[in-house]
Amino acid sequence: MNTRFLDTIAGKPVDATPVWLMRQAGRYLPEYRATRAKAGSFMGLATNPELACEVTLQPLERYDLDAAILFSDILTVPDAMGLGLSFAEGEGPRFARPVRTAADIAKLAVPDIGTELRYVTDAVSLIRRELHGRVPLIGFSGSPWTLACYMVEGGGSDNFARIKSLALNEPKLMHRLLEVVTDSVIAYLHAQYQAGAQALMVFDTWGGVLPPHVYREFSLRYLTRIAQALPRGEGEERCPLILFGKGNAPYLEELAASGAEGVGVDWLVSLEEARRRTGGKVALQGNLDPVTLYAEPDTIRAEVARTLASYGHGSGHVFNLGHGMSPDMNPDHVKVLVDAVHELSRPYHA
Amino acid sequence: MNTRFLDTIAGKPVDATPVWLMRQAGRYLPEYRATRAKAGSFMGLATNPELACEVTLQPLERYDLDAAILFSDILTVPDAMGLGLSFAEGEGPRFARPVRTAADIAKLAVPDIGTELRYVTDAVSLIRRELHGRVPLIGFSGSPWTLACYMVEGGGSDNFARIKSLALNEPKLMHRLLEVVTDSVIAYLHAQYQAGAQALMVFDTWGGVLPPHVYREFSLRYLTRIAQALPRGEGEERCPLILFGKGNAPYLEELAASGAEGVGVDWLVSLEEARRRTGGKVALQGNLDPVTLYAEPDTIRAEVARTLASYGHGSGHVFNLGHGMSPDMNPDHVKVLVDAVHELSRPYHA
Repeated sequence: MNTRFLDTIAGKPVDATPVWLMRQAGRYLPEYRATRAKAGSFMGLATNPELACEVTLQPLERYDLDAAILFSDILTVPDAMGLGLSFAEGEGPRFARPVRTAADIAKLAVPDIGTELRYVTDAVSLIRRELHGRVPLIGFSGSPWTLACYMVEGGGSDNFARIKSLALNEPKLMHRLLEVVTDSVIAYLHAQYQAGAQALMVFDTWGGVLPPHVYREFSLRYLTRIAQALPRGEGEERCPLILFGKGNAPYLEELAASGAEGVGVDWLVSLEEARRRTGGKVALQGNLDPVTLYAEPDTIRAEVARTLASYGHGSGHVFNLGHGMSPDMNPDHVKVLVDAVHELSRPYHA
Repeated sequence: MNTRFLDTIAGKPVDATPVWLMRQAGRYLPEYRATRAKAGSFMGLATNPELACEVTLQPLERYDLDAAILFSDILTVPDAMGLGLSFAEGEGPRFARPVRTAADIAKLAVPDIGTELRYVTDAVSLIRRELHGRVPLIGFSGSPWTLACYMVEGGGSDNFARIKSLALNEPKLMHRLLEVVTDSVIAYLHAQYQAGAQALMVFDTWGGVLPPHVYREFSLRYLTRIAQALPRGEGEERCPLILFGKGNAPYLEELAASGAEGVGVDWLVSLEEARRRTGGKVALQGNLDPVTLYAEPDTIRAEVARTLASYGHGSGHVFNLGHGMSPDMNPDHVKVLVDAVHELSRPYHA
């Protein structure tokens, strides 16, 4: 097995920097679009373990990636809690039954993962089997705050007025909501671990829209709870947990002390600074600006080189984008990036 | 005259913390919507000095604000450079002739402010006169990087793919564009100063989307050039310059050393940290999360109190939002905020 990814998180020496890309299985690949067409809809794809497995493996056929990540959506958990998720073509996610009132929140319960989210754990088991040990498989969940954003807003939002108002006006209600979501996330990640996931990611897409005191109270607190409470093996067998957050640069010290094994960062902080501030307590994952993939191949290589130089020598860095890929990106550019990471990183591991 | 705002920037003692709000003249006010209807269009309003004066003064009739800010748009400069600005109803700004190629950039020149932007300096003179010294008048411009974003993208953007690609693929071209825009911004701000503006703001709305090395090369460099090259009087007569940037928290030390008299910050950093990191070199302006205005009046007061406490005792803080107001905000909530700032800040100036 290619162990670069897991060795890097464990701080062990590697021959080259491992690389995978957030949303590496996605619409920019024609073979993904073909499978998606077979499935009929996005949720049709996400809820079908065979098809989810197929698209998870597609980018590994094209690129020398060092990890696979489960194809799924962060909103499966609130959907399983009964909110009624749908994706209109060309639009973002929508919940038919958003959470707005104390009564809405009181009704929420941790879903039965074994039945309601069986399609996810089945996909994890199947992908793990089909990978035949080629590369490790990453499972994931949205963060409690981020899931709560979609649950309260009912979908995406420009300004998060509803959830921020709820947090400020009714902090106790907000905490009640976040507690049941956190318990659900822990159960969900644990089920993925048991089904065969070899690393776990939590995506806190929207924590970075909060003022610091609100972030600490409503997002960081629950990320930390997950990092500390999630059962995931011990010692050499420990399944590492990586906390990613857009806009999490101000909180790197706190995230490094959360109990997670890795922290994913966006492109708004240099890896040099992130490494200095986390002091080797965690592995770092990131952080090329995804928009770089629209630039010329020579520019992509130069920016990969700069990112590697910013982290510097030694293990502990998983190369990734600072956020997910977009549907209009050029698959050939992805190959340039992945190959450049391996080629240009070797001197840093010599 | 109410000198709280200017005294605060000069670091002189004041009786209470001054407050004004970004986009305080705007669609959330019914009287603004009435004037806007008379004008026919947004640009019709912005280019008519009498009507621009009328809407600039409207929020001062309702609220005990400590400064007025010219009603205008940040995109007047590229419009005067010949790009053809328009605002479709319910959409963002659009340029008919975006800047995409080396030839487009070569054609750009500093506009003749005295003719092409006469409507702005006329508005400044008129507002200054109509204010009768009640409160100081703030003039403003977009930052070079932010103006270039709209010029290259042709309007708003989700990911700034065109301009980021230009900056990465063709850095020399990008600098040529930023140089002519910077010269234009300096001429524009200088003309507003000569017309009677008593403070000047530069809004760097989109600098914060850049990785640090790109921000420093393409945004901060030109902000610093403005701060150093803009003629604005000396000593007691100096017209202060405030640099605001969404997402500028990582660069506070550098902005404080730029030569500007003030730095405006968004809500993603505490004022306590901003004050510590800028070490009294500049006044700080900000930084309540604008979404707080959607919360209950008691919550607004509590968040005002928290913001004031975060800055702490003494002069040097101009209260503001961390970004502009939105059309669906409640005018009564604005009154709660403004009054709370004055009432709750007095102990910090005793």
